[in-house]
Amino acid sequence: MKFSIERAALLKAVAQAQSVVERRNTIPILANVLIEANGDDVMFRATDLDIEVVDKAPAKVERAGATTVSAVTLNEIVRKLPDGSLVTLTEDGASGRLTIEAGRSNFSLATLPKEDFPVMASSEYAANFSAPAPVLRRLFDKAKFAISTEETRYYLNGVYMHVSEADGGKVLRCVATDGHRLARIDAALPEGAADMAGVIVPRKTVGELRKLLDDDEMQIAVSVSETKIRFATPTITLTSKVIDGTFPDYTRVIPTGNTRKLEVDAAEFAKAVDRVATVSSERSRAVKLSLDEDRLILSVNAPDSGAAEEELAVSYGDERLEIGFNAKYLLEIASQVDRENAVFLFNSSGDPTLMREGNDTSAIYVVMPMRV
Amino acid sequence: MKFSIERAALLKAVAQAQSVVERRNTIPILANVLIEANGDDVMFRATDLDIEVVDKAPAKVERAGATTVSAVTLNEIVRKLPDGSLVTLTEDGASGRLTIEAGRSNFSLATLPKEDFPVMASSEYAANFSAPAPVLRRLFDKAKFAISTEETRYYLNGVYMHVSEADGGKVLRCVATDGHRLARIDAALPEGAADMAGVIVPRKTVGELRKLLDDDEMQIAVSVSETKIRFATPTITLTSKVIDGTFPDYTRVIPTGNTRKLEVDAAEFAKAVDRVATVSSERSRAVKLSLDEDRLILSVNAPDSGAAEEELAVSYGDERLEIGFNAKYLLEIASQVDRENAVFLFNSSGDPTLMREGNDTSAIYVVMPMRV
Repeated sequence: MKFSIERAALLKAVAQAQSVVERRNTIPILANVLIEANGDDVMFRATDLDIEVVDKAPAKVERAGATTVSAVTLNEIVRKLPDGSLVTLTEDGASGRLTIEAGRSNFSLATLPKEDFPVMASSEYAANFSAPAPVLRRLFDKAKFAISTEETRYYLNGVYMHVSEADGGKVLRCVATDGHRLARIDAALPEGAADMAGVIVPRKTVGELRKLLDDDEMQIAVSVSETKIRFATPTITLTSKVIDGTFPDYTRVIPTGNTRKLEVDAAEFAKAVDRVATVSSERSRAVKLSLDEDRLILSVNAPDSGAAEEELAVSYGDERLEIGFNAKYLLEIASQVDRENAVFLFNSSGDPTLMREGNDTSAIYVVMPMRV
Repeated sequence: MKFSIERAALLKAVAQAQSVVERRNTIPILANVLIEANGDDVMFRATDLDIEVVDKAPAKVERAGATTVSAVTLNEIVRKLPDGSLVTLTEDGASGRLTIEAGRSNFSLATLPKEDFPVMASSEYAANFSAPAPVLRRLFDKAKFAISTEETRYYLNGVYMHVSEADGGKVLRCVATDGHRLARIDAALPEGAADMAGVIVPRKTVGELRKLLDDDEMQIAVSVSETKIRFATPTITLTSKVIDGTFPDYTRVIPTGNTRKLEVDAAEFAKAVDRVATVSSERSRAVKLSLDEDRLILSVNAPDSGAAEEELAVSYGDERLEIGFNAKYLLEIASQVDRENAVFLFNSSGDPTLMREGNDTSAIYVVMPMRV
């Protein structure tokens, strides 16, 4: 194998590959990236056995071939090469080494046989559709903060993507919850997605996917089977197993009868929550919301360290209400709001509270109260 | 006590104070900052019993007084207040609380009695002098990378500041070493410093001092006794115990007979070292320098992972030489060079090597070789 490639193109492909590689693993070949040169392209493939990413980069291939080298070391080397370098990678098969040349620098890395590299089995995908990058970005970005980190509740360790109904029409919906809060985000159903099985996309996959979604103009090809999901751009293919479990019936958790409506400037609210939470001890970061006619008082009382109180002018017309929340949860939810106003719908101090952005019901959040 | 103060002035003073406070300590009052309002100023004092910092900020004092509160919490609160706020701090003595008001925010923090706060005993300082901030910055910045972190060699855990001779005249000198490398930085002797006792300034003090030295126009008043050192600007006073030990005779370590001279572009050299070191395992980061007529080859050979080599055009006219160094030490030394060229003076592959910036002998570095 021998090919030459621009340093920038090489770095982009290798960086994406090495981020999938787990830092600690007991199977040596999983630390490696599989490099396959053929025609006018080189493919860089990395996997942790649950996720596989394949990056394709244009290169001048002199001799086709394939080998595997440490993804982290290759990434470090390429990162440190001068910008604008032309990099030549050569492997002659006999030496068991890959040489990397650029200008006056010369590296040789130990290889492992390409035959040992675990390539993810191909699947039949029942549903295939295409979605603009900003749509997928919104669906996953706004949901992911609510993903559970509790390993025993493995079926909550991801974002549940499925087809649902809203306002009488079908939507593509992402839901995440950890039992304390929940995010439910809808988007118009793309053509071809209607028959998609509901799948739980693991947290790590959501993180890797994010890197494919930065380009606003990009269309992402999505393929879904009952066990796998694949996201593809013209140069990158990300394939992931989905979580083998049943996502709980989240609809029961979303309150429908909450009528007490608070409207508040989202940025002001988040800053005020952050300030009053300063005095509380790390563990029980409870913030109390006291609501009265067009007035919200946020307060924290931490007997050991102190107390804090802040008043905000809000829109609220219902009867007096006092309700407590975990400060971190309130902050995370408030920071999802892209518009000016956050709308909270309360029932009683013991019931789940609903939050949305203005009057937009395509992104709603639920947060459980705390006793204060 | 009651006073009002601009948020920016308060933040600056409290931030400096809280950075001295140790995050974990068993004596509760050491987590606090002592606030003393009097006249037109408020003093903020924090200590870890080895270092004391006092910040003075202008304020509108309505009622003189003093109290102590958590430095970290106060800093967090002030940091989160809106820029431009006027902050009012009030303590009535009876409640055991300090209230902090700004706009619609209101905080109250638990206090501890001011009488319990350990104020550092005042000292007689035998030497008093003044030095421009850039001079002290250079002395300590260029020396501190070589400070030892080995706790058993406590007398190396700081920068040895003392009066010495160079080129027949007296100089103010800072030296640090960890046994593997050494930095020796000289500056013109300030008036009044000639009788100063040599003192070892602890690592943490060097870090805190750095924050006083950002303003190029600032004159720093330095006072030195055998047990303490004090650095003062018009608003900040940093007092520190010095390390109670004898700094070893470092002059024995500095080679004087090294004649093989290598001159190299410092930035190019550092980048090349960084690149070739990529392939080596973390532990023995040995880089080999192979010198020949106007040519330097840097190489690393790590049997497990690979090898790397890079050639640099240099100025070298002596006989062939091969010598190995720890890559991290070489990098740290090369990054001290402000000018274009680093000059290395070698003897043999087993002897300490000397490095300086061009022909300037007011900053020299020594690094021990490694077998490769």
